[in-house]
Amino acid sequence: MTTTVSQRVFNFSAGPAVLPVPVLEQIQQDLLALPGVGSSILEIGHRTDEFGEILQSAKHGLRELLNIPENYKILFLQGGSRLQFSMVPMNLLRGQKKPADIVVTGSWGQKARDEAQREGQVNIAWDGKATNYDRLPKSDELKLSPDAAFVHITSNETIQGVQFQSDPDLGDAPLVCDASSDFLSRPISVEQYGLIYACAQKNAGPAGVTIVVIREDLLERSQDSLPGYLNYASHADQDSLYNTPPTFGIYVVGLVTQWLSDEVGGLQKMQDLNRIKAQLLYDVIDESSGFYTGHAQTQDRSLMNVTFRLPDEKTEEAFLSEAERQNMCNLKGHRSVGGIRASIYNAMPLEGVESLRDFMREFCGRHAK
Amino acid sequence: MTTTVSQRVFNFSAGPAVLPVPVLEQIQQDLLALPGVGSSILEIGHRTDEFGEILQSAKHGLRELLNIPENYKILFLQGGSRLQFSMVPMNLLRGQKKPADIVVTGSWGQKARDEAQREGQVNIAWDGKATNYDRLPKSDELKLSPDAAFVHITSNETIQGVQFQSDPDLGDAPLVCDASSDFLSRPISVEQYGLIYACAQKNAGPAGVTIVVIREDLLERSQDSLPGYLNYASHADQDSLYNTPPTFGIYVVGLVTQWLSDEVGGLQKMQDLNRIKAQLLYDVIDESSGFYTGHAQTQDRSLMNVTFRLPDEKTEEAFLSEAERQNMCNLKGHRSVGGIRASIYNAMPLEGVESLRDFMREFCGRHAK
Repeated sequence: MTTTVSQRVFNFSAGPAVLPVPVLEQIQQDLLALPGVGSSILEIGHRTDEFGEILQSAKHGLRELLNIPENYKILFLQGGSRLQFSMVPMNLLRGQKKPADIVVTGSWGQKARDEAQREGQVNIAWDGKATNYDRLPKSDELKLSPDAAFVHITSNETIQGVQFQSDPDLGDAPLVCDASSDFLSRPISVEQYGLIYACAQKNAGPAGVTIVVIREDLLERSQDSLPGYLNYASHADQDSLYNTPPTFGIYVVGLVTQWLSDEVGGLQKMQDLNRIKAQLLYDVIDESSGFYTGHAQTQDRSLMNVTFRLPDEKTEEAFLSEAERQNMCNLKGHRSVGGIRASIYNAMPLEGVESLRDFMREFCGRHAK
Repeated sequence: MTTTVSQRVFNFSAGPAVLPVPVLEQIQQDLLALPGVGSSILEIGHRTDEFGEILQSAKHGLRELLNIPENYKILFLQGGSRLQFSMVPMNLLRGQKKPADIVVTGSWGQKARDEAQREGQVNIAWDGKATNYDRLPKSDELKLSPDAAFVHITSNETIQGVQFQSDPDLGDAPLVCDASSDFLSRPISVEQYGLIYACAQKNAGPAGVTIVVIREDLLERSQDSLPGYLNYASHADQDSLYNTPPTFGIYVVGLVTQWLSDEVGGLQKMQDLNRIKAQLLYDVIDESSGFYTGHAQTQDRSLMNVTFRLPDEKTEEAFLSEAERQNMCNLKGHRSVGGIRASIYNAMPLEGVESLRDFMREFCGRHAK
């Protein structure tokens, strides 16, 4: 009766997305009662010693993997990146009498911009709309304010498939990064950022938990007049127990960090593997003589979301349905851009990507003129 | 290796709290791959047909159990009741030029009041502080505004253990109810309310999903200037898919509604059982000649949280540790009031309450003078 690995497909969903099988197996094993506790992770109080250990373990796992310095707080919140689009300017912009600089590199950057504009003065430091968000800005294209309250970037745009290849240097203002879709996929230099946020449902866990890593001095900007739940300082002061946190999600994030440390061997190894996986697909695109056309310019291609089109929509539909019959699912591009999108986050196994690569080659051989 | 029911204790936690065993078993069984889907509930996209069915099933389950009329929307949000304390006045009070009437019956009502006061004009219609929140207001004690934007109540106060015994009639203003801790524990007349909200982690599911039932006409009050995530109309327009919802939590809420319908037999039967369970404990208190002293006045006693003290703290500690040795856990009262609290939500089995009742009698026999 209990489901097993053999019943699983290759799931190329952009999020919620594939999770590591050992993590799922651990959740399944302990679902009725955590060992030594006698209750399910779904049932234990957030102020119990047992949950306290789970919370500290998840924080410790993140701190070790990302080398998070001691002067950064790790918060587990709810509401996804959407709520962060508002919380960031509510906390970091209100009362500053300075603008927020927003770098718009795709659909998520647009949404971050829209919400920041509701909260205060915004300067669009760059917007990639002119080329349909197929690339990132060159450093001499950025129009940064001399005194920004913060600079906001989106490290990876899931819909367009463009990604900053390394931690960008954008001046002295605190750098805020929406890292939702590449968090934990590679090492980063946390000290180059003022605030990093990520919803978990790409590489870090299930939907419903959002991780915020914030430099302590920035907490002083949060005004007491803010609604309680929307105040970073409230959450930091109470170590994510300001209210009932998403306990199950935090538990899964902890298991994912253990998997990354113990089974993958850390974030550098994870990045190496992610590069290999992405290259397998980009090579097919580049060798297809234009049958597959990638959306992103080569230098800014995402390792997480490989986006491409086929010659026409009918062929794309054939591609999707044939892939699904071969157990490669959720390859349809986002409704706003169409085409194909292969999301190959950390937990997508190499064999899944190889399987897709082989199918892409075979399909191209049959359909290319 | 897989955990089983035999390893479980009786968990009297106030929340996150005990869930029905058949629900936990179903989650465990399908954890690696939902039947016919090939991916875990933790991995499936929120815009897939598969999740669409899960979402509609959860909504349908709630609508059937509570007889929710068609002119009410059901939303699945994040952030718990704490975020609702702010979202309610942000959406229903801003721009109204009217006060919000707040009935303060305990610790949660206080927090709802505090957040409403950040957003606009608040009239405290009643506050039970004078008697340490041991009772609810009589109807002639309420000072309602002639033109309130809404009236807010907390149907059950988990910390003090007082509960409205039925749907109160508080005049013509929309009645807003924080039903977090007794939602789905009994039938209610939804049409008497303008808005009902409940975090799930008492009777409805795991922490991380919050249910909002709102009368459609009230959605017109939500101003476009509100932060996107905090606007009820955004969520209602997109049927809880404004952003990635807490997919797993919604799935569990759906399973809980199925359990209530199919195994319990509906909310009237659930209430009957909850009355029997609570009476078992209140009878021991009342028959103990003052050894156990209940916090709530008899007429306002909660069926969900039975709160009481013993003669002194040392005896309370002995009670707690002996209970724990007999596998009755998490009976300690909230840190703000102390004493003992037995939370006996829907999923606490009758045998768990009988076990506690027997222990209370036996303990009293040994310790009462």
